[in-house]
Amino acid sequence: DQPLVIGGRSFQSRLITGTGGATDLNLLEQALLASGTEMTTVALRRLDPRGDGAAVYALIERLKLQVLPNTAACFSAREAVTTAELAREALETNWIKLEVIADDKTLLPDVVQTLEAARQLVARDFVVLAYTNDDPIVARQLEDLGCAAVMPLGAPIGTGLGILNPHNIEAIVTRAQVPIVLDAGLGTASDAALAMELGCSAVLLATAVNRAQHPVVMAEAFRHAVAGGRLAALGGRVPRRRHALASSSMEGRAYL
Amino acid sequence: DQPLVIGGRSFQSRLITGTGGATDLNLLEQALLASGTEMTTVALRRLDPRGDGAAVYALIERLKLQVLPNTAACFSAREAVTTAELAREALETNWIKLEVIADDKTLLPDVVQTLEAARQLVARDFVVLAYTNDDPIVARQLEDLGCAAVMPLGAPIGTGLGILNPHNIEAIVTRAQVPIVLDAGLGTASDAALAMELGCSAVLLATAVNRAQHPVVMAEAFRHAVAGGRLAALGGRVPRRRHALASSSMEGRAYL
Amino acid sequence: DQPLVIGGRSFQSRLITGTGGATDLNLLEQALLASGTEMTTVALRRLDPRGDGAAVYALIERLKLQVLPNTAACFSAREAVTTAELAREALETNWIKLEVIADDKTLLPDVVQTLEAARQLVARDFVVLAYTNDDPIVARQLEDLGCAAVMPLGAPIGTGLGILNPHNIEAIVTRAQVPIVLDAGLGTASDAALAMELGCSAVLLATAVNRAQHPVVMAEAFRHAVAGGRLAALGGRVPRRRHALASSSMEGRAYL
Amino acid sequence: DQPLVIGGRSFQSRLITGTGGATDLNLLEQALLASGTEMTTVALRRLDPRGDGAAVYALIERLKLQVLPNTAACFSAREAVTTAELAREALETNWIKLEVIADDKTLLPDVVQTLEAARQLVARDFVVLAYTNDDPIVARQLEDLGCAAVMPLGAPIGTGLGILNPHNIEAIVTRAQVPIVLDAGLGTASDAALAMELGCSAVLLATAVNRAQHPVVMAEAFRHAVAGGRLAALGGRVPRRRHALASSSMEGRAYL
Repeated sequence: DQPLVIGGRSFQSRLITGTGGATDLNLLEQALLASGTEMTTVALRRLDPRGDGAAVYALIERLKLQVLPNTAACFSAREAVTTAELAREALETNWIKLEVIADDKTLLPDVVQTLEAARQLVARDFVVLAYTNDDPIVARQLEDLGCAAVMPLGAPIGTGLGILNPHNIEAIVTRAQVPIVLDAGLGTASDAALAMELGCSAVLLATAVNRAQHPVVMAEAFRHAVAGGRLAALGGRVPRRRHALASSSMEGRAYL
Repeated sequence: DQPLVIGGRSFQSRLITGTGGATDLNLLEQALLASGTEMTTVALRRLDPRGDGAAVYALIERLKLQVLPNTAACFSAREAVTTAELAREALETNWIKLEVIADDKTLLPDVVQTLEAARQLVARDFVVLAYTNDDPIVARQLEDLGCAAVMPLGAPIGTGLGILNPHNIEAIVTRAQVPIVLDAGLGTASDAALAMELGCSAVLLATAVNRAQHPVVMAEAFRHAVAGGRLAALGGRVPRRRHALASSSMEGRAYL
Repeated sequence: DQPLVIGGRSFQSRLITGTGGATDLNLLEQALLASGTEMTTVALRRLDPRGDGAAVYALIERLKLQVLPNTAACFSAREAVTTAELAREALETNWIKLEVIADDKTLLPDVVQTLEAARQLVARDFVVLAYTNDDPIVARQLEDLGCAAVMPLGAPIGTGLGILNPHNIEAIVTRAQVPIVLDAGLGTASDAALAMELGCSAVLLATAVNRAQHPVVMAEAFRHAVAGGRLAALGGRVPRRRHALASSSMEGRAYL
Repeated sequence: DQPLVIGGRSFQSRLITGTGGATDLNLLEQALLASGTEMTTVALRRLDPRGDGAAVYALIERLKLQVLPNTAACFSAREAVTTAELAREALETNWIKLEVIADDKTLLPDVVQTLEAARQLVARDFVVLAYTNDDPIVARQLEDLGCAAVMPLGAPIGTGLGILNPHNIEAIVTRAQVPIVLDAGLGTASDAALAMELGCSAVLLATAVNRAQHPVVMAEAFRHAVAGGRLAALGGRVPRRRHALASSSMEGRAYL
């Protein structure tokens, strides 16, 4: 298999694990390791200079993960651009996971503001990974603006409902020239496998691991599921048939 | 994780890969290895003393896999019992995958004949792994008759439609005291992961690997998917929520 | 449209509404009327000579509905046959809705006992409408035994989960020569419409009407849904397409 | 039931049938009548002064239907506004079904242009019924701009795939203060019933009727399905239960 390439960098792992939702630093560390991820997201917005933020950042450094700051909790293009600039200065990276949400109840993206923010961030030389809804047109517009990856949701953040509209995800993937990363809404391993089978290049998770009963076990589950789904996408699955097809023969020849 | 125990024997792998549908011995060997399976099914019914049967059997011996003869293409309890006795003699194993199908068009199990055959085979000291439909009552009756494992279908053999009725599979698993092995109908990795998440103890596949465009790749895909699904079942997935839940915080504390 | 014909009798309505679950005689009467049904089921098993049974029966007579006694709460072929004979004597009808359930927790049919009871009841000159699971083989066996109609479940009784396995219902309908009546598990109007679109000849309901918040409104909802689903089955729906197709043209010619 | 009110006008029918896709004027007339619709859409864009457009318009007048011109085949806010102005002049109505699509292959809406067009059209005193994707945030933004109704798609135009994401439709309906009209993608009666059960105020169809094998039969099917789905939404369906619930009793009392 080819490595995943985003913004000119290669990744062996196709699972991106966020730090959001974690409740214990030790568990977070073990879960990050078990997931096999090479990149992790952190929310700059909620920076607390006295507190946990520094500890999480130290952990990311120790694990040699690429840090992907996000603009979580930004409600407008202007806020998102400001947050991205702060992140670039603080973390010395021009990578940004762009998130502009419409309100703090649905946490759904505001696509008009997201498109505007993407335009500005690309112009400011950011490598933009844009969180968005599952609308194939918006995905294409984000790509046309120069985003390095487009990250449609499977379901609203934190719901664990999986991929509510596989048809749209497949439509997005079919036309995309940049990596499509399924982001948000996944609940369990089969959801991640399905995302990869639909043709996504990677999967981004946070809640589904960090809020599981056993985050480390679930991190390993997702690592396997992403690998399995990727291989299944490459392996050329059997066609779906309406009617049965005997398997216990070898083209008419006998077995055993 | 605990090993899978069927009929007193332990298995590390929870993926059982059949030989059915294979069209090339080399590919079959590589696929069996890639799948990590420790047990494989063969159809005694189609024994051809001159031909491929012997080669397949030699392969199974060389790979040190447990052989699980099946009664594929039997249409009655009587035929199935006769076939099982022939298999016991020829292969020196009292393990049998019981399959009694209603016709060679749908390949669906005839549950009345299956129950009768199970009764007779248990009385004859077979270790019976019984292929059946997804009816929770029939599954329980097979267990009550003494079957070592019950193997409900996800969808008709060879269709690749996945698990048509997850509700039934979950109902079967919830009440079962013996291992439930999802058998038939799976098409791709996420189907296998889902089977394990629903609580199945293992997955049995043939067509989905052997008839894929790249059987070896797909065998590895299923190996990962079964492992991932099993871990997800153990890991305690997040609950499904109707509404969003922010992940980019650590219980209110800041991250980075 | 042709009328529905079961056991030589014609029905204009394709909705059969049961009395089960009703909590108020007046509501039951209005719901039966609103549903437009011409036949209704009653449970003989629970006959209480002092009580409500007589009132329900009088209501059925007044509304001139065909009575269809059922063998609800029978756990064996023997019980079902005895109950059917009692019903024939008490209600002067040789029609029987055959129900043999496996236990009073799942309320799922015991198909072995159901098949045996069907064999005996047909031999005793009953017109048998047999409640069963959604296994296409069992459905065919019931038809081969001489049942006048086969009544697969959509989901377990009283769950309101709709049709859990449309693939099986379609497979049953495709091969059947007798009417297939979807029985049990429906929750709302679209479930009933779907049953008809899959090719069922009729729908049987009780809980979904009698336990709704407004039984009379829901009875009318189901009346429309069954009519709509039937017409859709006859009308030749548009094919499902993966890609869009413009509608705002008349084969290239202009509109308006 | 209350009538449907859009832009201050009341409608008894909750089914809006378009003229798009029709291939025969007589069939179109009969289908419009069978559907019971009181309003129909026409595409101004494709006006052909010599031809069918006039005949269709005469038909709409004769049937006394409210005409709802649409901006089909407009690719920008500017085009849509111009088209709406032409329609207002030609048809003497300030009602407009706003459609701005992104390309003529997917026919998916361009939500940025749609929002801009809605803003301008409301400012010009149009009664705007806005076709959009199923994003709850965009739906709310259209409402906030002053649209009289918001019309999310079930699936891409002409696909007949039904409602790909019922969760989103339900989320849109839950927050909306204006009527939500399910528009595009429906294939059959149960799809329309489901739309109404999810809480939509009405359904708009064209292809599903006009391109069916028997448009008049299908028009009647949808009329019933919309009525049935609406009643089911009002009737208070039974809850979904994971486990069975006996129906053949009246709270413990007997039923003949």
